[in-house]
Amino acid sequence: MNRLSLALLHYPVVDKHDEIYTTAITNIDVHDIARSAKTYGLAQYYLVSPITAQQELGKTIASFWIDGAGMSRNPDRSQAMELVSVQADLDGCIANEHALTHSEPVLIATSAKSSKKTTITYDDARGIIEDNLSTILLFGTGHGLAPSVIEKSHYLLEPIYGVAGYNHLSVRSAAAVILDRLTVDRA
Amino acid sequence: MNRLSLALLHYPVVDKHDEIYTTAITNIDVHDIARSAKTYGLAQYYLVSPITAQQELGKTIASFWIDGAGMSRNPDRSQAMELVSVQADLDGCIANEHALTHSEPVLIATSAKSSKKTTITYDDARGIIEDNLSTILLFGTGHGLAPSVIEKSHYLLEPIYGVAGYNHLSVRSAAAVILDRLTVDRA
Repeated sequence: MNRLSLALLHYPVVDKHDEIYTTAITNIDVHDIARSAKTYGLAQYYLVSPITAQQELGKTIASFWIDGAGMSRNPDRSQAMELVSVQADLDGCIANEHALTHSEPVLIATSAKSSKKTTITYDDARGIIEDNLSTILLFGTGHGLAPSVIEKSHYLLEPIYGVAGYNHLSVRSAAAVILDRLTVDRA
Repeated sequence: MNRLSLALLHYPVVDKHDEIYTTAITNIDVHDIARSAKTYGLAQYYLVSPITAQQELGKTIASFWIDGAGMSRNPDRSQAMELVSVQADLDGCIANEHALTHSEPVLIATSAKSSKKTTITYDDARGIIEDNLSTILLFGTGHGLAPSVIEKSHYLLEPIYGVAGYNHLSVRSAAAVILDRLTVDRA
């Protein structure tokens, strides 16, 4: 079966002035997106940060629920946390997918903003996921992925527009909606 | 235009042993769901708690972004927070809708679990929203809405099943997905 994974990047991302910066891993992003990843059948949830202390934090949060006191308290959470893989950068995610599938993963970037890069529709993305052994959906924290990541990606998914000319979803909400649109069969 | 609103109940909800309890308002629920409510064109986001100190907390969080220092820092957040209406109980939400529309709002409960009550599909729910002046979608914190709220509601929406036999989304993620399914036109 083809692998669909999600990578949450804490670097390189942009702040509200479109400057490149590094964000901190937040507990709520680890929990909410791990739960969504498990619900929508993802293969892996990559937490990406170049900062060693932040990588340790990500591992500590996940392992508390896998091996620690959290396991007996909430076994459902444990199943979600098992999807977490902490990586220093996007290349680490690509290498891991490559090791598992012996093929290059397809990278689909997400953004709430319009960009120079042409976007693909949700239907296009479903087809791409179906046709490839491994696909990684890339999400940026802060104010979104750095332009260099979007350029490097094979595709850019069209934004979630909502209905009101306002599209400022949290990354947790956006990830859930995108996974729902890409994986659930519609009647 | 018909009103679609969302109510996040902190009481009466159930804990993991299915006992009725009261949860605390969390900052992240206020922010994430207000942003989703604004993105998907909702009329109101009701924050429901019977505890006076909690109601004050909810009002303080929202007003910081409307009148306070948050307004200049992030005007987008201000637009989302303007949808927040703090209420002591579900009757307060109903009374507010009644005052605005001179009609009884339709209550659609949500749950991740199956229940005795027959569920409606997302298409059914779209039709109901279209046919009524005011509809309130009810979400429970903790481990979900108390059975009394589900019984009292006119309808119960079918759970989000995902694709992996695991459906433990956070209430923030579930709200975003349900609003996406109910409001965005599908190609």
